[in-house]
Amino acid sequence: MSKGVMHFDVGEQVELYLLIKSSTKGVASNGKPFLTLILQDQSGEIEAKLWDAKQEDEQTYSAQGIVKIAGDIHHYRGRNQLKIKNIRPLQDHESFDVSDFLETAPLKKDEMMDTITQYIFEMKNPNIQRITRNLVKEHQQALLEYPAATKNHHEFVSGLAYHVVSMLKLAKSIAALYPSLDTDLLYAGVILHDLGKVTELSGPISTTYTVEGNLLGHISIMVNEIAQAAKELDIDSEEVVILQHLILSHHGKAEWGSPKPPMIKEAEILHYIDNLDAKMNMLDRALERVKPGEFSERVFALENRSFYKPVFHK
Amino acid sequence: MSKGVMHFDVGEQVELYLLIKSSTKGVASNGKPFLTLILQDQSGEIEAKLWDAKQEDEQTYSAQGIVKIAGDIHHYRGRNQLKIKNIRPLQDHESFDVSDFLETAPLKKDEMMDTITQYIFEMKNPNIQRITRNLVKEHQQALLEYPAATKNHHEFVSGLAYHVVSMLKLAKSIAALYPSLDTDLLYAGVILHDLGKVTELSGPISTTYTVEGNLLGHISIMVNEIAQAAKELDIDSEEVVILQHLILSHHGKAEWGSPKPPMIKEAEILHYIDNLDAKMNMLDRALERVKPGEFSERVFALENRSFYKPVFHK
Amino acid sequence: MSKGVMHFDVGEQVELYLLIKSSTKGVASNGKPFLTLILQDQSGEIEAKLWDAKQEDEQTYSAQGIVKIAGDIHHYRGRNQLKIKNIRPLQDHESFDVSDFLETAPLKKDEMMDTITQYIFEMKNPNIQRITRNLVKEHQQALLEYPAATKNHHEFVSGLAYHVVSMLKLAKSIAALYPSLDTDLLYAGVILHDLGKVTELSGPISTTYTVEGNLLGHISIMVNEIAQAAKELDIDSEEVVILQHLILSHHGKAEWGSPKPPMIKEAEILHYIDNLDAKMNMLDRALERVKPGEFSERVFALENRSFYKPVFHK
Amino acid sequence: MSKGVMHFDVGEQVELYLLIKSSTKGVASNGKPFLTLILQDQSGEIEAKLWDAKQEDEQTYSAQGIVKIAGDIHHYRGRNQLKIKNIRPLQDHESFDVSDFLETAPLKKDEMMDTITQYIFEMKNPNIQRITRNLVKEHQQALLEYPAATKNHHEFVSGLAYHVVSMLKLAKSIAALYPSLDTDLLYAGVILHDLGKVTELSGPISTTYTVEGNLLGHISIMVNEIAQAAKELDIDSEEVVILQHLILSHHGKAEWGSPKPPMIKEAEILHYIDNLDAKMNMLDRALERVKPGEFSERVFALENRSFYKPVFHK
Amino acid sequence: MSKGVMHFDVGEQVELYLLIKSSTKGVASNGKPFLTLILQDQSGEIEAKLWDAKQEDEQTYSAQGIVKIAGDIHHYRGRNQLKIKNIRPLQDHESFDVSDFLETAPLKKDEMMDTITQYIFEMKNPNIQRITRNLVKEHQQALLEYPAATKNHHEFVSGLAYHVVSMLKLAKSIAALYPSLDTDLLYAGVILHDLGKVTELSGPISTTYTVEGNLLGHISIMVNEIAQAAKELDIDSEEVVILQHLILSHHGKAEWGSPKPPMIKEAEILHYIDNLDAKMNMLDRALERVKPGEFSERVFALENRSFYKPVFHK
Amino acid sequence: MSKGVMHFDVGEQVELYLLIKSSTKGVASNGKPFLTLILQDQSGEIEAKLWDAKQEDEQTYSAQGIVKIAGDIHHYRGRNQLKIKNIRPLQDHESFDVSDFLETAPLKKDEMMDTITQYIFEMKNPNIQRITRNLVKEHQQALLEYPAATKNHHEFVSGLAYHVVSMLKLAKSIAALYPSLDTDLLYAGVILHDLGKVTELSGPISTTYTVEGNLLGHISIMVNEIAQAAKELDIDSEEVVILQHLILSHHGKAEWGSPKPPMIKEAEILHYIDNLDAKMNMLDRALERVKPGEFSERVFALENRSFYKPVFHK
Repeated sequence: MSKGVMHFDVGEQVELYLLIKSSTKGVASNGKPFLTLILQDQSGEIEAKLWDAKQEDEQTYSAQGIVKIAGDIHHYRGRNQLKIKNIRPLQDHESFDVSDFLETAPLKKDEMMDTITQYIFEMKNPNIQRITRNLVKEHQQALLEYPAATKNHHEFVSGLAYHVVSMLKLAKSIAALYPSLDTDLLYAGVILHDLGKVTELSGPISTTYTVEGNLLGHISIMVNEIAQAAKELDIDSEEVVILQHLILSHHGKAEWGSPKPPMIKEAEILHYIDNLDAKMNMLDRALERVKPGEFSERVFALENRSFYKPVFHK
Repeated sequence: MSKGVMHFDVGEQVELYLLIKSSTKGVASNGKPFLTLILQDQSGEIEAKLWDAKQEDEQTYSAQGIVKIAGDIHHYRGRNQLKIKNIRPLQDHESFDVSDFLETAPLKKDEMMDTITQYIFEMKNPNIQRITRNLVKEHQQALLEYPAATKNHHEFVSGLAYHVVSMLKLAKSIAALYPSLDTDLLYAGVILHDLGKVTELSGPISTTYTVEGNLLGHISIMVNEIAQAAKELDIDSEEVVILQHLILSHHGKAEWGSPKPPMIKEAEILHYIDNLDAKMNMLDRALERVKPGEFSERVFALENRSFYKPVFHK
Repeated sequence: MSKGVMHFDVGEQVELYLLIKSSTKGVASNGKPFLTLILQDQSGEIEAKLWDAKQEDEQTYSAQGIVKIAGDIHHYRGRNQLKIKNIRPLQDHESFDVSDFLETAPLKKDEMMDTITQYIFEMKNPNIQRITRNLVKEHQQALLEYPAATKNHHEFVSGLAYHVVSMLKLAKSIAALYPSLDTDLLYAGVILHDLGKVTELSGPISTTYTVEGNLLGHISIMVNEIAQAAKELDIDSEEVVILQHLILSHHGKAEWGSPKPPMIKEAEILHYIDNLDAKMNMLDRALERVKPGEFSERVFALENRSFYKPVFHK
Repeated sequence: MSKGVMHFDVGEQVELYLLIKSSTKGVASNGKPFLTLILQDQSGEIEAKLWDAKQEDEQTYSAQGIVKIAGDIHHYRGRNQLKIKNIRPLQDHESFDVSDFLETAPLKKDEMMDTITQYIFEMKNPNIQRITRNLVKEHQQALLEYPAATKNHHEFVSGLAYHVVSMLKLAKSIAALYPSLDTDLLYAGVILHDLGKVTELSGPISTTYTVEGNLLGHISIMVNEIAQAAKELDIDSEEVVILQHLILSHHGKAEWGSPKPPMIKEAEILHYIDNLDAKMNMLDRALERVKPGEFSERVFALENRSFYKPVFHK
Repeated sequence: MSKGVMHFDVGEQVELYLLIKSSTKGVASNGKPFLTLILQDQSGEIEAKLWDAKQEDEQTYSAQGIVKIAGDIHHYRGRNQLKIKNIRPLQDHESFDVSDFLETAPLKKDEMMDTITQYIFEMKNPNIQRITRNLVKEHQQALLEYPAATKNHHEFVSGLAYHVVSMLKLAKSIAALYPSLDTDLLYAGVILHDLGKVTELSGPISTTYTVEGNLLGHISIMVNEIAQAAKELDIDSEEVVILQHLILSHHGKAEWGSPKPPMIKEAEILHYIDNLDAKMNMLDRALERVKPGEFSERVFALENRSFYKPVFHK
Repeated sequence: MSKGVMHFDVGEQVELYLLIKSSTKGVASNGKPFLTLILQDQSGEIEAKLWDAKQEDEQTYSAQGIVKIAGDIHHYRGRNQLKIKNIRPLQDHESFDVSDFLETAPLKKDEMMDTITQYIFEMKNPNIQRITRNLVKEHQQALLEYPAATKNHHEFVSGLAYHVVSMLKLAKSIAALYPSLDTDLLYAGVILHDLGKVTELSGPISTTYTVEGNLLGHISIMVNEIAQAAKELDIDSEEVVILQHLILSHHGKAEWGSPKPPMIKEAEILHYIDNLDAKMNMLDRALERVKPGEFSERVFALENRSFYKPVFHK
C-alpha cells in the first residue's frame, strides 16, 4: 500500500482503499441525512462527510468495513478533511485484511516478546520472576496485540508491548546510573503495570472500555491478578504485596487514579519511566509533521500545549 | 469502675486505675528526662507528664501497662491534663483486664452479629448473599472487635461492627423511601465496605497501620478478597464485579482514595450512608460535653469546624 | 393524552399535540432562517428543527404555544430528535391547557400541603413553629406550584413541594435512628431551605431567574424573610438566628454558595438530606430508560458521571 | 505616656505601665504553673512570661487589668519578648484609663464622622441616601469605636471608621478618573460594606466574635438590616436590591464568603477598593519597623509573603 | 465615516466600507465552500458568511483587504451577524487607509506621549528615571501604536499607551492618599510593565504572538531589556534589581505568570493598579450597549460573569 | 576523621570535633537562656541544646565555629539529639578546616569539570556551544562549589556540579533511546538550568538566599545572563531564545515558578531529567539509614511521603 492518506497535502487528488474506523449519522441543515466517516490506513486517520446518505448507505459504510474512495484533501478548522467524490465498498475480487489498514508498533511481535522474555530471564528474585512470567504467559497474545490506550499515547496495534519494551530499556539505562535501584522490581513493574488493560479494553480494533474496565479499571484488575497468580504459585512472601503496590501506585497520585501514592523507591521511579515514555511518544507524534519554525497542534494530554520546532532543526 | 477520668472537672482530686495507651520519653528544659503518658479508661483519655523520670520508669510505665494514679486536673492549651502526685504500677493482688479500660461500642457483640446475620439472611440474590456471608464468616471475630479507624470516628473497640450496624439500619430506612434501590447491593456494600480494615489495621488496642495496610489500603485488600471468595464459591457472574465496584468506589472520589467514582446507583448511596453515619458519630462526640450557648472544640475531620449548641437546647 | 413523546423509539412515526417550551431562530448554512423548537409533553421534552421558516412562523411557533405535529424520531449526537413532516398551530375547536403538557410531581398538591402542615403541627418549639407556619402561609400557592430548580433535579411543576415532602420523610427516618437530633430544627430547615426560590425563580413554566434571584439568590432572600417574619411575630429569641443559619449554611460550603458552613448539628444533617434527595431524583431519572447491561447518559450535576445498570437488574 | 513598649530595642531596660490584653495559664516543664501575658500600650503589644505563678496571680493579672512592669527586652523566635523582673497591679493613687493603652486610628472620631456625613450629603439618589443615613445613624457610636477586624488589618480602636474614610477618599479619586461609575452606589457600598461588623464583633477591646457573628457573619447581618431599613423608610424600589447586592458580593468570590460574585460595575470596584485599602494598611504596618535592605516578617494575610525595603529608601 | 457597523439594529439595511480582519474557509453542509469573514470599522467588528465562495474569492476577500458591502443585520446565537447581499473589493478611485477602520484609543498619540514624558520628568531617582527614559525612547513608536493585548482589554490601536496613561493617573491619585508609596517606582513600573508586549505581539493590526513572545513572554523580555539598558547606561545599583522585580511580579502570582510574587510594596500596588484599569476597561465595554434593567453578555476575563445595569441608571 | 556523628546509635557515648552550622538563643521555661546548636560533620548534622548559657557563650559558640564536644545520643520526637556533657571551642594547637566538616559531593571537582567540559566539547551547534562555554567559564569556580539548593536535594558542597553531572549522564542515556532528541539543546539545558543559583544563593556554607535571589530567582537571573552572553559573543540567532526558553520553562509549570511551560521537546525532557535526578537523590538519602521492613522519615519535598524498604532487600 503505497502513499498513506496522511501524506497527501491540501488540494491533492486521492484514490485509496481505506478502513472505516467509525461511521456516525447526522442530519444536515437541509434536512437530509449524512454520514461522518473516520477513515484510516497505516499512516493515520482522516474525516470525510458522505452527504445525502441513503437508507442503505448506513449499512454499507459501517465501522470496520473497507472502502475504495476518490476525492481531494481540504483544510477545515485546523485539520485536513477528505472531500469524497466517489466511494464504493470492496468488491469480491479485491482482497484486503483489516490489519493492512491499522497503525502498528514499529517492532515485530516476536522481537518484542523476545525482549520481554529476556528481561524476565535476568531477574534474580525467584518470586518476582515467577509471578511476572506466569502473568505474561497467561495474557501473552493480548499483550502483543493490544494498544496501550484508546487515545493520547501508544494507541495503535501492539502499542502495549511497544510501550513495555521502550520502558524496559529506559529502566535498564536509569538503573545503570543509579545502582541502588532493584531492577527485578523495576522490570516486573514495567511489564505488569498496564497489563490489566487487556481486560480493561475491548481489543486492538475500534478499542473501547469493557464493563469491567469501566467499573474496576486496569489497576485494580491487575492487583487482583497478582494475588491470584501468587496463590496459584503458592507464593506468600512480601514480594506479592510489593508487586501489588507497584501497580497500585503507578499513576502517582490519588487524583490520577492511584489509591496509594508510591511508597517504594522503585514505585516512584516506575511512575516516572511510564510518564517519560508516554510523553516522548506524544511529543514525537505531535512534531512529526511540523516544519521548522512552526508550532504543532495542541496536545490535549500535555496540558493542551502546542510545541515549537526550532528553525535550526534542519 | 465508678467515675471515669473524663468526668472530673478542673481542680478536682483524682485517684484512679488507668491504662497507659502510650508512653513517650522527652528531655525537659532542665536537661532531665520525663515521660508523656496518655492514660485512658472507658470514659476517654487524658495526658499526664511524669517529670524527672528514672531509667527504670521508662520500663515500668510503658504502653498497655495499668497504673494506680493520684493527682489533680489542670487545664492546659484548651485541654485537660492530669498532674501526677503519685503513680505506681498494678500490684499483684489487684486484678484488672486491659478491656476494662477501653472504650467500647454501646452494643454487645452478640447483638451486632445477630443484626448483621439477619440482614444477610434477608438478601434475595444468592451470589451476593453467599459472597457476603463467606467473607463475614472468615473475618467474624475481627469484625466484632476492631475499631472502624485509628481516629476521627468509631475509633473504639467494636467500632467497625457498630458502624456497620448503624449503616444497615440507615440503608433500610432510606431504601423504604426510595424503592428503586437494590437492598441486596446496599446491605452487602455496607457489610463489606470497611471489612478490609481488619487487615489494614493492627487490632483493637493501640491501633496502627500494618505494612499491607499502608501499601495497599483496605479498599484494594477487600476488592482482592471478593475475587478470591468468588473463586472459592465458584461464582463467575456480574455480581462479583459490581460488589468489587461498590467497595472500590465507596470513598466517592479519586482524591479521597477511590480509584473509580461510584457508577452504580447503590454505590453512590453507599458512599452517602457511610458519610452520614460517620458524621453523626463525630458530631455527637464533639457536642456531648458542650453546654448550651457554647461552641465545641474544632473537629479536624469536619473541615476543622467548631459546632454550636443552641441556648434553647435545654 | 396517550403515549408521550419520550416513549417513542428511533424510527417510529409520531403524531402528537405538544407544547413549545422554547423557540430560537437561526440561519442555516444555505442562508435561510430556521427555528429550533424544544417541544414537551408530560413524558419529557425533545428537540425539532423547522427548516426554511417564514417570517410569520417565528410568531406562530413561539414559546408556550401548543402545536399539532407529525414526524419521525431520529437519533442525533446521542439524543433523540423529532424530524418534522407536518406542523400546525392549535385550531379553535381543539382545547388544551398548558398544564396538560407539563411534567408534574407524582403527588397531588393537597396531599403535599397536608404532609407539610402535619410536620409543622408536630413541632414542639413554638417560636420555630410560628415562623415556619407564617412563611409557608405567605408563599403557600407558589410553594405548591414552583419547581425546585431550572434544571438538574426536581425541575418540574410542584417540584419544590415534592422535594420538601421527600426530605421531611427522610428527616423523620434519620432522626428516628439518631435521637440526639432536634426534629423541630430539622423539619423547619427542610421546609424553608429552598422557599426563597419562589422569589428567585420566575414561575413554574419556562422558568428563569428574576433580577432579585440573580443578584441576591434564594439563600439571602429567605434569610431576610425569616428576619421579617420574626419581627412581625415579635419573636426575638435565639431561634431566629439558628433558623437563619440553617438556611444560610445549607449548601454546605462557601464555594457552593453558603457564606457560612454548617455550625449546628442539624444544619450539617440538613445539607446531607438535601443532597441525598436531590441525588436520588437525578439517579432515578438518569436510569429510568437505561436497559440492564448499559450505561446512562452523563449526568452533569453528578460530576458528569455515567451510571451502569447491572445485568442482573431484571 | 512617653516611649511605647514597641520602641525599645533588644537589651534595653523597660519600666512601664501596660494593659493586659490576655492572660493564659500554663504548666512549665518543672511542673510549676506560669502565665503568658500579652501586654499592650498604644505602640503595640509584646509577650511576657510570669514564671512560678501563684494561685492568686491568675486573678491579679487577668485580661483588661493594668500593671506596672520592669524588665528587659529579649529576642525569641523572631519576635521581641519582655522578660519580667518586677510586676505589680495598679495602685489606688495611679489613675489610668484602658483607652490610654489601646492603639487607635490616627484620625479623631469627629473628623471621621464629618467626612462620612459629607459623603452621604453629596449623594443624589434619595433612596440610597436615606437608607445609608438611616443605618449610619442607628450604629453611629459603634461605627466610630469598633475595629474593622480582630486581626490582619485595621484591628485597632476606630479601625472600622478609619477604613471607611480611607476607602471613601479612594472611591472619589477613582470615580474622578472613570466617570462612568455611580458615586452614590460606590459611597453607600463603602459606608455599609463592613457595618455589620458592629454586630459580628464584641466591641473595641479584646475583640471576639459574637454568636450571631459566627453563625451569620457581617455580610448577611447587613443585608438583613438594609431590608429592614428600607421597610421602615417605605422604600420599595430597585435601589434596595442593588445595595444588598453590593454588600453581599463585596468579598468578591464564593470561596471568600460572598454567596454571589459582583454583578454590578460598582460592586466589582467596591471589592477592589476594599482590598486596596486593607493591603496598604497591612503593608505599611509590616514595613514600618523594617530597615532599608531588610525583609519584613511574613504577613499571613498577604499569602505569608515577606516584603523588602529597598536600600535606596533612605 | 458616518454610522459604524456596530450601531445598526437587527433588521436594518447596511451599506458600508469595511476592513476584513480575518477570512477563514469552510465547507458548508451542501458540500460547497464558504468564507467566514470578520469585518470591522472603528465602531467594532461583526461576522459575515460568504456562501458558495468561488476559488478566486478566497484571494479577493483575504485579511486586511477593504470591501464595500451591502446586507442586513441578523441575530444569531446571541450576537449580531451581517447577512451579505452584495460584496465587492475596493475600486481604484476609492481611497481608504487601513487605519480608518481600526478602533483606536480615545486619546491622541501626542497627548499620550506628553503625559508619559511628564511623569518620567517628575521622577527624582536618576537611575530609575534614566532606565525608564531609555527604554521608552527605544520603543517609543511601538508603545504608541500597539494594543495592550490581543483580546480581553485595551485590544485596540494605541491600547498599550492608553492603558499606561490611565494607570499613571491612577497611580498618582493613589499615591496622594498613601504617601508612603515611592512614586518613582510606581510610575516606572506602570510605564515598563507591559512594554515587553511590543516584542511579544506582532503589531497593531491582526495582532498575534511572535515566536519570542510565545517562548519567553513579555515579562521575561522586559526583565532582560532592563538589564541591558542598565548595562548600557552603566548603572549597577539596587534600582536595577528592584525595577526587574516590579516587572517580574506584576501578574501577582506564579499561576498568573509571575515567577515571583510581589515582595516590594510598590510591586503589590502596581499589580492592583494594572488590574483595576483593565477591569474598568472591560466593564465599560461590556456595559456600553446594555439597557437599564438588563444583563450584559458574559465577560470571559471576568470569570465569565454577566453584569447588570440597574433600572435607575437612566 | 573517624566515625561521623550520624553513625552513632541512641545511647552511645560521643567525643567529636564538630562544626557549628547555626546557633540560636532561647529562654528556657525556668527563665534561663540556652543555645540551640546545629552541629555537623561530613556524615550529616545533629541538634544539641546548651542549657544555662552564659552571656559569653553566645559569642563563643556561634555559627561556623568548631568545637570539641562530649555527650551521648538521645532520641527526641523522631530524631536523634546530642546531649552535651562537655563542650569547648577549638584550642590553638588543634588545626581543622571548615571544609573538613562539610558534606561534599562524592566526585572530585576536577572530575566533574572534565565531564562538563567533555559534554560541551561534543556539541555540534556552535552557537549553543559558545554560549554554554562562555557562561560555564564565567561561573566555573562557583559552579564547582555551590550546593544545588538550601535543602531538599543536593544541598551539600559541590551539589550543583554533581547534580549537573548526573543529569548529563541521564540525558545521554535517554537520548540514546529516543534519537529524535537534540543532544546539544539537552546538554546545554542541563548545564545552564540551575547555574543562576550561584547568584541566587550566598555560597557553599550556611547557605541562604541573596536579595537578588529572593527578588528575581535563579531562572530570571540566568535568562538575563544568556542574553548578555549572546550579546558579548555577537550571536543573534534563534538559539538564544530557545536556550532562554529551556531555562525559563524547566520548572515545568507556572505554579512551580516557570512563567512559560515547556514548548520545545527538549524543554519538556529537561524538566523530567531534572526531576528524576532530584528524586533519586532524595530517595537515596531518605532510605540510606532505614532497615529492611521499616519506613523512612517523611520527605517533605516528596509530598511528605514516607518510604518503605522491603524485607527482602537484604
